[in-house]
Amino acid sequence: MAVHPIDYRYGSQEMRALFEETNLHAKKLAVEAALAEVLAEKGFIPREAAATITANARPEIVTVERVKQLEAETKHDIMALVKALTEVCGEAGKYVHLTATSYDIVDTALALVLRDALGLIVRKAKLLLGELLNLAEKHRSTVMVGRTHGQHAIPITLGFKLANYADKLGDDTRRLEEDKERYIVGKFSGAVGTYAAQQLLGLGDEIERGVMQKLGIPVAYISTQVVPREHLARIVADLAILAGTIEQMAKEVRNLQRTEIGEMGESFGKGQVGSSTMAQKRNPINAENICSNVRIIRSCVGPALENIALEHERDLTNSAAERSLLPTVFVLTDEILDRSRKVWAGIDISEERMRQNLDMSRGALMAERIITELVRHGMGRQDAHELLRESSNQALAQNTDIKSILIRSKAMNFLRTDELDGLLDYRSYIGLAEKKVDDVVARWRGLAKS
Amino acid sequence: MAVHPIDYRYGSQEMRALFEETNLHAKKLAVEAALAEVLAEKGFIPREAAATITANARPEIVTVERVKQLEAETKHDIMALVKALTEVCGEAGKYVHLTATSYDIVDTALALVLRDALGLIVRKAKLLLGELLNLAEKHRSTVMVGRTHGQHAIPITLGFKLANYADKLGDDTRRLEEDKERYIVGKFSGAVGTYAAQQLLGLGDEIERGVMQKLGIPVAYISTQVVPREHLARIVADLAILAGTIEQMAKEVRNLQRTEIGEMGESFGKGQVGSSTMAQKRNPINAENICSNVRIIRSCVGPALENIALEHERDLTNSAAERSLLPTVFVLTDEILDRSRKVWAGIDISEERMRQNLDMSRGALMAERIITELVRHGMGRQDAHELLRESSNQALAQNTDIKSILIRSKAMNFLRTDELDGLLDYRSYIGLAEKKVDDVVARWRGLAKS
Amino acid sequence: MAVHPIDYRYGSQEMRALFEETNLHAKKLAVEAALAEVLAEKGFIPREAAATITANARPEIVTVERVKQLEAETKHDIMALVKALTEVCGEAGKYVHLTATSYDIVDTALALVLRDALGLIVRKAKLLLGELLNLAEKHRSTVMVGRTHGQHAIPITLGFKLANYADKLGDDTRRLEEDKERYIVGKFSGAVGTYAAQQLLGLGDEIERGVMQKLGIPVAYISTQVVPREHLARIVADLAILAGTIEQMAKEVRNLQRTEIGEMGESFGKGQVGSSTMAQKRNPINAENICSNVRIIRSCVGPALENIALEHERDLTNSAAERSLLPTVFVLTDEILDRSRKVWAGIDISEERMRQNLDMSRGALMAERIITELVRHGMGRQDAHELLRESSNQALAQNTDIKSILIRSKAMNFLRTDELDGLLDYRSYIGLAEKKVDDVVARWRGLAKS
Amino acid sequence: MAVHPIDYRYGSQEMRALFEETNLHAKKLAVEAALAEVLAEKGFIPREAAATITANARPEIVTVERVKQLEAETKHDIMALVKALTEVCGEAGKYVHLTATSYDIVDTALALVLRDALGLIVRKAKLLLGELLNLAEKHRSTVMVGRTHGQHAIPITLGFKLANYADKLGDDTRRLEEDKERYIVGKFSGAVGTYAAQQLLGLGDEIERGVMQKLGIPVAYISTQVVPREHLARIVADLAILAGTIEQMAKEVRNLQRTEIGEMGESFGKGQVGSSTMAQKRNPINAENICSNVRIIRSCVGPALENIALEHERDLTNSAAERSLLPTVFVLTDEILDRSRKVWAGIDISEERMRQNLDMSRGALMAERIITELVRHGMGRQDAHELLRESSNQALAQNTDIKSILIRSKAMNFLRTDELDGLLDYRSYIGLAEKKVDDVVARWRGLAKS
Repeated sequence: MAVHPIDYRYGSQEMRALFEETNLHAKKLAVEAALAEVLAEKGFIPREAAATITANARPEIVTVERVKQLEAETKHDIMALVKALTEVCGEAGKYVHLTATSYDIVDTALALVLRDALGLIVRKAKLLLGELLNLAEKHRSTVMVGRTHGQHAIPITLGFKLANYADKLGDDTRRLEEDKERYIVGKFSGAVGTYAAQQLLGLGDEIERGVMQKLGIPVAYISTQVVPREHLARIVADLAILAGTIEQMAKEVRNLQRTEIGEMGESFGKGQVGSSTMAQKRNPINAENICSNVRIIRSCVGPALENIALEHERDLTNSAAERSLLPTVFVLTDEILDRSRKVWAGIDISEERMRQNLDMSRGALMAERIITELVRHGMGRQDAHELLRESSNQALAQNTDIKSILIRSKAMNFLRTDELDGLLDYRSYIGLAEKKVDDVVARWRGLAKS
Repeated sequence: MAVHPIDYRYGSQEMRALFEETNLHAKKLAVEAALAEVLAEKGFIPREAAATITANARPEIVTVERVKQLEAETKHDIMALVKALTEVCGEAGKYVHLTATSYDIVDTALALVLRDALGLIVRKAKLLLGELLNLAEKHRSTVMVGRTHGQHAIPITLGFKLANYADKLGDDTRRLEEDKERYIVGKFSGAVGTYAAQQLLGLGDEIERGVMQKLGIPVAYISTQVVPREHLARIVADLAILAGTIEQMAKEVRNLQRTEIGEMGESFGKGQVGSSTMAQKRNPINAENICSNVRIIRSCVGPALENIALEHERDLTNSAAERSLLPTVFVLTDEILDRSRKVWAGIDISEERMRQNLDMSRGALMAERIITELVRHGMGRQDAHELLRESSNQALAQNTDIKSILIRSKAMNFLRTDELDGLLDYRSYIGLAEKKVDDVVARWRGLAKS
Repeated sequence: MAVHPIDYRYGSQEMRALFEETNLHAKKLAVEAALAEVLAEKGFIPREAAATITANARPEIVTVERVKQLEAETKHDIMALVKALTEVCGEAGKYVHLTATSYDIVDTALALVLRDALGLIVRKAKLLLGELLNLAEKHRSTVMVGRTHGQHAIPITLGFKLANYADKLGDDTRRLEEDKERYIVGKFSGAVGTYAAQQLLGLGDEIERGVMQKLGIPVAYISTQVVPREHLARIVADLAILAGTIEQMAKEVRNLQRTEIGEMGESFGKGQVGSSTMAQKRNPINAENICSNVRIIRSCVGPALENIALEHERDLTNSAAERSLLPTVFVLTDEILDRSRKVWAGIDISEERMRQNLDMSRGALMAERIITELVRHGMGRQDAHELLRESSNQALAQNTDIKSILIRSKAMNFLRTDELDGLLDYRSYIGLAEKKVDDVVARWRGLAKS
Repeated sequence: MAVHPIDYRYGSQEMRALFEETNLHAKKLAVEAALAEVLAEKGFIPREAAATITANARPEIVTVERVKQLEAETKHDIMALVKALTEVCGEAGKYVHLTATSYDIVDTALALVLRDALGLIVRKAKLLLGELLNLAEKHRSTVMVGRTHGQHAIPITLGFKLANYADKLGDDTRRLEEDKERYIVGKFSGAVGTYAAQQLLGLGDEIERGVMQKLGIPVAYISTQVVPREHLARIVADLAILAGTIEQMAKEVRNLQRTEIGEMGESFGKGQVGSSTMAQKRNPINAENICSNVRIIRSCVGPALENIALEHERDLTNSAAERSLLPTVFVLTDEILDRSRKVWAGIDISEERMRQNLDMSRGALMAERIITELVRHGMGRQDAHELLRESSNQALAQNTDIKSILIRSKAMNFLRTDELDGLLDYRSYIGLAEKKVDDVVARWRGLAKS
């Protein structure tokens, strides 16, 4: 039975498969095969040997189990892999792994895994982005209260709120797409990065270029025994930032689903149980789950940063940490992307509660507008501000409408009653909210569909 | 195949078993059984019903698989468990889970897991402590150079170095043992911690006391829906501090195993391969692995701290994060304890290299001693310091012995030649190093054996 | 002008003074004076010399500025201090710093600062604890809704909510008080911890004991050049846990002050401005500030943990980090303690809004109670649960009272109408909430007053 | 006296000045002035009023002290600033801050500070990059041993080692330069980001565009009350990654300066004191200091990530945290850049020790080369590997040269003696090390000089 939740609970099957032991194993074999082929092309090993190696460099033939048996003896994972591959290749065995050092295989295989994993994240981020853009368009004009500090401020539209998230999500996604092109690189530069072994064969960095071309992955510009860990740190940090955006959206669901607010809520499946004892409850469990998993995602950044400062031409202190942090950060980011999409695709919106909540403040949230108008009509700004502050405090104290306070105030030296009515129509006080929705949709629709 | 390394690579079988899904599941059933028994003892449900529930509250009967099936419908893990237990209990089924809320079950079951897990950690920490105390005694008088800033300072003994580690390990272990008594608690106080449901039956907090007594676990002094997450944070932080001590010891192995230093080294199994290409290498792979895993252990503290500030009488944001961080921190701490014990039990000590390294500085590392002696013989302290600084710089520049410099200096106004010889015998300049070993052994031997 | 907010904005004057350069400087001088006195008592330096040193070891005489001048030359802070003290002591100067190594002075001086700082934190934590206990007692019976997942659950009392916080705060405070006794220690064991220099004088560890006794601080059981950094890590982690409790309380204010909830709020000074444009706003700015500063406090734990694994008998990598993290964690914890006390001392409680919010759910939050009662009257537990789930969904859908739904349901096969009315009185469904307040007050009142 | 080390010890004067209270204050005034000018240009306020405001919006006239006085009354920093500016502007005062909300001022002023700060970081990173490129070129062919796991591996050149650092530094710097263009943005979109107030004047987002154009800063594509905190998180993470590269370089100095290695060392000023008691010591104090400060820099990433998920159209929880973390991360990064440059500009290189260390292994580090050659001459790869492993173990055990072992082995079935001699000349076994130096210099020289 499984121990860590990314092994039994979180993450799509597709993402988990990428980080299963077998996949990294398969990718290492693929690198060994690519190496053999390049060596054959360069005329350094027989073409038939390369063919034999390639034919056998498959996880069904060279199994994880066999490698583990051998590792128990040698205490060295890649030597075990090489032995396991060698032993099934007969005569061709002696050409296995030639000129390679362990980390040529490991780091390049890891790059193949990460390329796929980051590709999957980007794909799902675009799906979520698309979902948000749709929802923002749909609710382009749905008026609700804007809040700062948990307090009612002035009106916005739901579409505007979502457009803010979408824009951030677009930025996050674009950056991850760039990271994928720039920072996932392979290497085949030997034990300390000098290509010393290959150079003996007069090949320089040709093997490196050949192998990476076969595998479709860019080459590290320079490397030691390993590729720069700065690259991984950048990717992990950018995943954590994406997670931050998704957390913000999930927190919003949790807050707007509060019993007292009720403006939106996670859809509630038939037969779903909110609480074992409190049958009436509808809990934002997916949004809470997202917020919780984001804490773990964020916690992966620290070790990724500590992994940068390896000693000399490398030490091993990045290795075990990456074994934990890379699957964790990718599988959990995959999880929250899927879960977020599910939440937003099925979100229940209550326009009625939005209206009720707007009405709660009985106009006080239009203070800014009224101040501006009073100033336009000649009142001093500080005076107007003071007037509105007092009026809204009075309205609160007297549990009444701000209008009934203002109508008896010196505001009426500057405004007519009908003007005051218009000013208090918060539905007309949403500024460029709708235009901004359009702008954001225009900005990111292409990426979402790509 | 597994994804996270605590599922396929790190941790003892014993520790992993504690955090397997099945174990938490079994513990939840145990709590349900304890509840039924207490309710029967209080006369609220028939004794036979309790007996039936207890007989069936076993993971072989109520399987994880069945609960998962039901959870897929209800989307609620504990309701699913309750249903699965109910359905196998026939008539007695209606008495299952009575008066309980989900987290009464979950948090108490978690406490049972953590009690065992922390017990195992403490047990292994004591084994490591014992190993270190033995080694410190054995090398009580093995002189080696003390180093600060990576530079030779003055002599110590290896036993003294190890006694410092042992003393810290003793402190760490004692604290974790206290944590185990104080901070692993159960609760059965209902949906928000008021015992409202139990109070309806006129039972107050009697069920809670009864259940915890049966399970052998202390009761939270007060709780909401959950026990305080401060408790977990304290445990996780103290595990990370233990990990810090172990990291320091591992780092020391790595540094003292450097080719140029060579004073100690991990034992190297027959047939073990240091490098796939550099056959001559002996790498401190276990020590490096420890340093790497400690990064992940440390990274668990952040989420554990963030989990404290739950909203109201609880939100769910601790839940998924704990699912990741608790197995991770416990299994990896278990791993580094085992691995550290293995490293230290098999450590190769080279007294020869220790002697050679002491000789490297040709006496300069006795400067402090000579300064003191010169001052005792009447030289000003600053003068003496200046003299030694210059002499040691000269010795370095001329690649010669400090003695040959000093013998031609004004030091000889204060010292005789034979006195100078005695002062340069660094083997006699270890102060109380040996006594301190004895003190530390006396302090902690009892705990190590407990 | 200041750069970091602990230099111009956060923290009490009292706490900031402890971490000012001058205070650490003064403490170092105090350690030098204590050393001279002990050496004189042991007969190793003239009593008059000690008297001269003590008389001059004062920050007004040996100024920070002079030390900085000398440090610019020597690049070594303690050598500069020693020179500055020596130069003002005339003949006695040559007895300054005898047998000491820099970190004997630095680590012991730091311990003196931390003792005062932690003492201040504990004192303020007790004040906050006292405040909370008072408030919990005052609102022992103030009924309000309990919430889980941001949703209404069942009733609690405000006193009960606060008692939960108080109990955690009590645990946090007690632990910090223990830390203060156990983990703030000095050392005077020389360059690598062996007392080699003192032993030359035949003094062993007597100087250490003498100096610490004079300064009133416990001795490290064993040390290298420095005392164990595990100790500091424990203190920093425990401060972060205290901060977590305070954060939870602040978050609660923010949530309960939401416009839609309005059950409590920070007191709002006359003339205070909520927003420059939205005059009606009352923002929980202190609570928000606390939550924000807690993030920084938490972030100090990572470096404190990384500082443990120093190399050999010490390296310097803890030093600069401690210069940042210790003032930051102490001054900001001081800040949030003061601010939290201010928030809670002046908290506005709206019992009216509490009642209104309880009424919102029209009885649905009594579902748990009704289920229990139905089961007591013979209904199956799952049936009762199902009935209540459906009834509460219906009530929600029809915007009506749960009573009017239940009265037409099969619940009436088990209950009389007047029984149903009693069951729906949530004011009577608070279980042991009040008793728990009393328990917690009894548990911690003594500590709060100590 | 100062409390935090960025206030008294770390950071250049230039960087500290950017984060002083006064500078942010001055920038806020600059934003108010820009606003007034734009409003005048649009015809909404008199040109003379704008001129008056601009003339007075200077920190010498509107002082920090006056604003603090007013803030003590209003408890609101920006309202205090507005009052302070208003009171000195006479009649024009009523046009101050018109249509603006506090965070329009604050976030835009912050962007101005960050633009300068990041500009300074990039400038200094380029200087360090240039220094490294020079050093790499100079030591393009200086042969030294390459190390993995702290063990000798195969030869490299010092230039190659430095080229690896330089390449990473180039990547880091380029990314920060991009961040500066993309992620430092201002906003003037009002209380919740809808431009509602400006729209009242029929201005839409024209004020925003006008103000940002005047200030030379890009506009946030969309904003709420604040610009996205994702942007800041990206910058802070990228600074921490740069710090990781610098840490790696500093760690290398520390390791190569070890007494037993001695291949390089920090230059040691005349009169500088290594230790107060151990006069002979030369400690890598700058490199240690860098490694220590990097811990603090890394710890800033966590809060920066937590700051992303603000509630609704903003809460204040980013604010206090940013007050700490932004100066900390920028000033300390500035510090380590300066210090790193100083270390590398003055680095002492000992080619003699490099040669001695290469000789230590007596040829064993050429094993890889010999294996390859044996395979080329027809030996099986595993056989060759086994032979070299055994030979190097024997050489170690017998304290002899690998050559004397090999010459009596079956290797001589494949090689002539003179061939063996050539193979053991590690100076010729550096592969493409020199070419890679040239590549890296070619890649980044332009950026370093830009």
